[in-house]
Amino acid sequence: MTEPIQHLQLALEIIATISLALSGLISAARKQLDPVGICMVSGVAAFGGGTLRDILLDRRPFFWIENSYWLWALLALVVIAMLLMRSRHLQLTERAIQLPDALGLGLFTALGTQIALGDGLSGIAAVLMGVISAVFGGVLRDVFCNEIPKAFSDHQPYALCALLGGSALVLLQHLGLPDSLALIAAFGLTSALRIVTILRGWRMPGWRV
Amino acid sequence: MTEPIQHLQLALEIIATISLALSGLISAARKQLDPVGICMVSGVAAFGGGTLRDILLDRRPFFWIENSYWLWALLALVVIAMLLMRSRHLQLTERAIQLPDALGLGLFTALGTQIALGDGLSGIAAVLMGVISAVFGGVLRDVFCNEIPKAFSDHQPYALCALLGGSALVLLQHLGLPDSLALIAAFGLTSALRIVTILRGWRMPGWRV
Amino acid sequence: MTEPIQHLQLALEIIATISLALSGLISAARKQLDPVGICMVSGVAAFGGGTLRDILLDRRPFFWIENSYWLWALLALVVIAMLLMRSRHLQLTERAIQLPDALGLGLFTALGTQIALGDGLSGIAAVLMGVISAVFGGVLRDVFCNEIPKAFSDHQPYALCALLGGSALVLLQHLGLPDSLALIAAFGLTSALRIVTILRGWRMPGWRV
Repeated sequence: MTEPIQHLQLALEIIATISLALSGLISAARKQLDPVGICMVSGVAAFGGGTLRDILLDRRPFFWIENSYWLWALLALVVIAMLLMRSRHLQLTERAIQLPDALGLGLFTALGTQIALGDGLSGIAAVLMGVISAVFGGVLRDVFCNEIPKAFSDHQPYALCALLGGSALVLLQHLGLPDSLALIAAFGLTSALRIVTILRGWRMPGWRV
Repeated sequence: MTEPIQHLQLALEIIATISLALSGLISAARKQLDPVGICMVSGVAAFGGGTLRDILLDRRPFFWIENSYWLWALLALVVIAMLLMRSRHLQLTERAIQLPDALGLGLFTALGTQIALGDGLSGIAAVLMGVISAVFGGVLRDVFCNEIPKAFSDHQPYALCALLGGSALVLLQHLGLPDSLALIAAFGLTSALRIVTILRGWRMPGWRV
Repeated sequence: MTEPIQHLQLALEIIATISLALSGLISAARKQLDPVGICMVSGVAAFGGGTLRDILLDRRPFFWIENSYWLWALLALVVIAMLLMRSRHLQLTERAIQLPDALGLGLFTALGTQIALGDGLSGIAAVLMGVISAVFGGVLRDVFCNEIPKAFSDHQPYALCALLGGSALVLLQHLGLPDSLALIAAFGLTSALRIVTILRGWRMPGWRV
């Protein structure tokens, strides 16, 4: 990829990771965790999805081990948040991170799916890896906070947007589109879908069992 | 192994995996998860035990990545179940899967233990791997549904049957029985034990602390 | 290292692992788990932290697979405890294991950090691996018991002592201290810090959100 696109990608990764970490921070604060718990849950929310994908694909080192500034940045973020945030900010932050979180959903889905395709996985398995990259940070965050994962239970299309975006990437690469274009299209589609579902308040049907 | 036995083994694997997936589906439906959560929990129930075993033994690729028709089949199963199943079917299904689940317990215990022995593990570690293969899909299912794992708390001999069956496999191979015979014996013993415990309603003693 | 120190280290590892297993046993007993659940939760508490570290660092075989007497010892410990322990012993045991647990915290932090440094990890990532080694056995124990991890929520400095001790090890090795001395210093510092926090009843500040 050209250099400006690489810079844009890094900028998006940083923004998306910060919003994931803040989602962990909010959950941890609501459960009255102590400072150690807040750091851990924020870290799991931010890095858990990509780490689980890498364990499943047997890839090492993890990005947060290769580039340890991610860990320093997380630590700084949590310390600053604990010094400056008050309870009236929690809900505000929760709403403010919806947009960067949607961008992150798109980016991590697209990157995760492409990495898995590069490892030779079939389309459906690669899409699943993309979804896991994007969604399981939040899932593990909720498990450690002793809650049913929101991604499994809140009836909002979240992993579903990732599923559709990842499938688009597989399809577009299959049709011969260059990798970088397919990546951008999948990123755009996933994020746009997620933003539309938030704006429109779309919900998945429940199972009338 | 001869071809008919391989076909029988595949048929048993399919039946057992379906019953594991249905156990996830039932748990997810009871917790009112959304369609994404139902897919994920069913998938974790069906593939989680074997996947955890493979991570612990550092084996790749996972069977559901190597043969992605497992993922398509899971998706189809969940979609069909959501279209056809109603609440009065849940309890019926729960009873109907007890027998295939017992067969799966035997099969996955025997296969998991044998794979681990083939990797050079000691007897006790191999049996543990067999138990993990057979039981941890359900354990992870319950963790994601925010419940104490049933396998740890319902006082029914379940992992215990796996433990005895896996131990029998180690013993029989040690005594010089051919691998395939030891496998079949361990499968039969585990499944039979499980079925007897269900029919007789046997329960493990609690700890009178 | 010289032989007496190796023997001392092994003795400490045994004492610390027993106290971790007993912490799992107490949690499992309080949740009324069945004998299988008690074994599993004790095993996860005892071996989970080191195992997770090894999965993250992609190290195999795990120590409890390489030396399966660890598994036999765990089994024996749980059986003996179930035969001899009564409810009035639970609280007593909980207090009695505080000291060996503090020694284990120091030992596993120091060993985990040193192993990760030997694998070429940066300082902060190595310290995190040390903390994970020492703390995540208990975290996974609480997840399987369907509780918020105590290490994240009880406001006692526990992982924090590990963080400081691990950082000391990184610093001392950086300053050129021989590996074995840095290890002993980090072990001593972590354990001493933990013991002082217990004796003084120190608590981490909550986050006044």
